[in-house]
Amino acid sequence: MSTFTELVQSRRSAMNFVEGIRIPQNELEEMFSYARLAPSAYNLQHAQYKVIADGNLKEEIRNGAYGQYKIHSASAVIVVLGDMHAYLQAPEIYSGLRMLGAMTQEQYDAQIESINSAYIGNETFQREDAIRNASLSAMQFMLIAKDKGWDTCPMIGFDPEAIKATLQLPENLVPVMLITIGKDNKHNIRPRGYRKPVNEFVEFIGV
Amino acid sequence: MSTFTELVQSRRSAMNFVEGIRIPQNELEEMFSYARLAPSAYNLQHAQYKVIADGNLKEEIRNGAYGQYKIHSASAVIVVLGDMHAYLQAPEIYSGLRMLGAMTQEQYDAQIESINSAYIGNETFQREDAIRNASLSAMQFMLIAKDKGWDTCPMIGFDPEAIKATLQLPENLVPVMLITIGKDNKHNIRPRGYRKPVNEFVEFIGV
Repeated sequence: MSTFTELVQSRRSAMNFVEGIRIPQNELEEMFSYARLAPSAYNLQHAQYKVIADGNLKEEIRNGAYGQYKIHSASAVIVVLGDMHAYLQAPEIYSGLRMLGAMTQEQYDAQIESINSAYIGNETFQREDAIRNASLSAMQFMLIAKDKGWDTCPMIGFDPEAIKATLQLPENLVPVMLITIGKDNKHNIRPRGYRKPVNEFVEFIGV
Repeated sequence: MSTFTELVQSRRSAMNFVEGIRIPQNELEEMFSYARLAPSAYNLQHAQYKVIADGNLKEEIRNGAYGQYKIHSASAVIVVLGDMHAYLQAPEIYSGLRMLGAMTQEQYDAQIESINSAYIGNETFQREDAIRNASLSAMQFMLIAKDKGWDTCPMIGFDPEAIKATLQLPENLVPVMLITIGKDNKHNIRPRGYRKPVNEFVEFIGV
């Protein structure tokens, strides 16, 4: 068994955290430097993160998440956001490849055109793609965090409007999930939740 | 540098695949047995997969994805689906923990109640949560595939209605993305796309 499959097996959503553990910014920066290698549609990198370790602000986020205690005990709560306007950055993202000669001007123009036609005027797609790509990034982040010795828990139980108000977010940033991060206190370990057998969620056709 | 960070760096979206490579079902089953350990909201396991290696059906999917050649050359195209009705399985998913005594009847009832109140009557949340959780699962799957020697490419360029028609999907299953899988033919390698520096997509508050 390789290290990665061990990692996947050891990552569990933390039930609670040891209080008072500080998470250093340089460790977080290292984790995000790997998280950013996750794929995204057209490489638009829709994911944005706000890492909140400030006590007062953390409690405000907790209020917007129905008072869940694990936000209080975590070293930080991370608000994962998806940018509905990520497509506006396409020229910036692709100009490097064009300048390096890895993309011709024609390929560049076709790529920008294709991105614009997917997103412009399609708010539902902008929003759903923000959620989709921020989620890809978040999964890679949680695995990296575990690899670096930090436990996480993704959380969907929050009021998006309260989070947007607390952080004064512009309308294009969609709160996709919260991730609490810290050291699991291991006081409340229960069996891993039931997982469906493979044949209940995968169908093989012609394999 | 640990094995996992090497893996994250080596996973690239494949530009194209070596044609005619068969992907064995037992290898896919092993990959999905790890993919299913990804977290999901309330452990509802919204992700479903259809792995299509059948030549004719693969070409039909390709037609629904604007003819993209990489679907033709890939060993299989995987349709990643999110189930808007995943919450209906909550009693089945939680009854085991209750029977094992890891959850009291009261905790079980509260959990089911909390799931129902999040999903019932909220179609937008059902749909967005299907996308969110299927994406978490898909990211873990792509990393596992790379760990097992398979290259992948997540694809958003397809017509969801065409895919639904081809696979005769019920309305509750949302096509979230396609993933082509196979062996990268390495004929078309270009520099990894530009990635934003960490400080452009992460804000640290009180860290």
